[in-house]
Amino acid sequence: MSEAQPSAVGGTKSHRIYLLLKDAILSGRLPAGSKLPGENKLAEQHGVSRVTVRRAMEALQTTGLVERKAGVGTVVLEQPLDATVMTASVSNLMPNMVKMSQASQVRLLEFAYVLPPEMIRERLGMGQGGKVQRSVRVRMVDDKPFSHLVTHVPEAIALHYNEMDLANTPLFVLLERSGVKVDHASQSISATLASHEVAEALDVAVGSPLISLTRVVFDEQGRGVEHLDALYRPDRYRFQIDLERNGDGNSRYWEPKVGGVPTSGKAE
Amino acid sequence: MSEAQPSAVGGTKSHRIYLLLKDAILSGRLPAGSKLPGENKLAEQHGVSRVTVRRAMEALQTTGLVERKAGVGTVVLEQPLDATVMTASVSNLMPNMVKMSQASQVRLLEFAYVLPPEMIRERLGMGQGGKVQRSVRVRMVDDKPFSHLVTHVPEAIALHYNEMDLANTPLFVLLERSGVKVDHASQSISATLASHEVAEALDVAVGSPLISLTRVVFDEQGRGVEHLDALYRPDRYRFQIDLERNGDGNSRYWEPKVGGVPTSGKAE
Repeated sequence: MSEAQPSAVGGTKSHRIYLLLKDAILSGRLPAGSKLPGENKLAEQHGVSRVTVRRAMEALQTTGLVERKAGVGTVVLEQPLDATVMTASVSNLMPNMVKMSQASQVRLLEFAYVLPPEMIRERLGMGQGGKVQRSVRVRMVDDKPFSHLVTHVPEAIALHYNEMDLANTPLFVLLERSGVKVDHASQSISATLASHEVAEALDVAVGSPLISLTRVVFDEQGRGVEHLDALYRPDRYRFQIDLERNGDGNSRYWEPKVGGVPTSGKAE
Repeated sequence: MSEAQPSAVGGTKSHRIYLLLKDAILSGRLPAGSKLPGENKLAEQHGVSRVTVRRAMEALQTTGLVERKAGVGTVVLEQPLDATVMTASVSNLMPNMVKMSQASQVRLLEFAYVLPPEMIRERLGMGQGGKVQRSVRVRMVDDKPFSHLVTHVPEAIALHYNEMDLANTPLFVLLERSGVKVDHASQSISATLASHEVAEALDVAVGSPLISLTRVVFDEQGRGVEHLDALYRPDRYRFQIDLERNGDGNSRYWEPKVGGVPTSGKAE
């Protein structure tokens, strides 16, 4: 499906309604074959005119999400499972490892040595005044971007590799090559909206939903060696967590299924 | 922070800009003390008038996110860490277990026996024509909603408990009480936008970002016993995944830190 950007053509109200309906379709809440509410109903629900609703419907049709059937109404079309959807298993953090390393490409958008923002400095446990290498990368499969990665690495470590390395090799590999003894990582997953800048890089409309992940990686001495802010397109990436129920009686608990796949790289 | 709904008062363009800036602030991309771009810059960036930008700024100020300082500009305010933010640890799936069971309340919005949507029927591995119990619940702490839960449970299991049970007891406990031998679960985490209905239940603006989680729970025979579609407010809930790097040499891998906390309930 091509990423039309109706924001550039239509008004903003219709664009918002387009985004909401598109999201409902891609997330499966409006499954293939289901009928959208009528124009009057949608107009009322969103407090807009029928003209605005019609514009949103046209955009949905243009982008292949719905079909208008005479005498039936607007029907959701079957969405071909995007071949580039990556699934990141949380237990081993390897989102289709082979595919990832062989088929994905990286575009390096920014590369600089800077003073880190306060929050990142604190999370890395760095003292005041220390510099970090900041890089912005976009990861793609078949020229389709799926992740936007902003990383901060303390200068002393980052000096072991250069811009070109970063464009060609997963950061995680570069860290271990630099002699860093990676020990543990802390991650949190949330949701956010695509800002102007990110929307452009990921080829989505401004205000689209994105999965956000923040990761801080520590070495054996507990020093922060990498801070990652990653944003993922939910139509091309998702986190998979499989669990097993273990234990007996009153001490039953859930455990993630640990794959233990040997890895030299890591999901970004 | 109270959830003002500027969409009801301002226009939709300004509302969208308000949402984007609010998201940038709450996610830490615009940290406390940082200055927002000027009105002209924002107007240009978003292709709107200065009046529209000003309306968004007013909403940000009204909701306590920014402060306008004479001669300085619009500055991001310190956001008090919301006391109700829940953190779900993925390794043991217990988001602050004690807090969860003692301090959270459930509002049951819907309860009915229905034919399941095709996708859910397939995921549960059910035959055609079988009914499910469908419930919609909202979970809150101190009257502040943080999750919106839609569950589907095969009729034969669901008949062991009633509406009142569901309003008072975690579904997971009800399943085990019904004699179900829970064995494993498959989960996927993504991001989505708040639809009209969900926005109202979670007290957020339509189009706000939400974390979405889909979980299918299976028994020892591999039969689907619960299908959950959960939506979480990212300002009140987040998934935490801590990892350890284990193994030696070429067979190093990441493992989630398993807490193994005994549990009778489960994160919803």
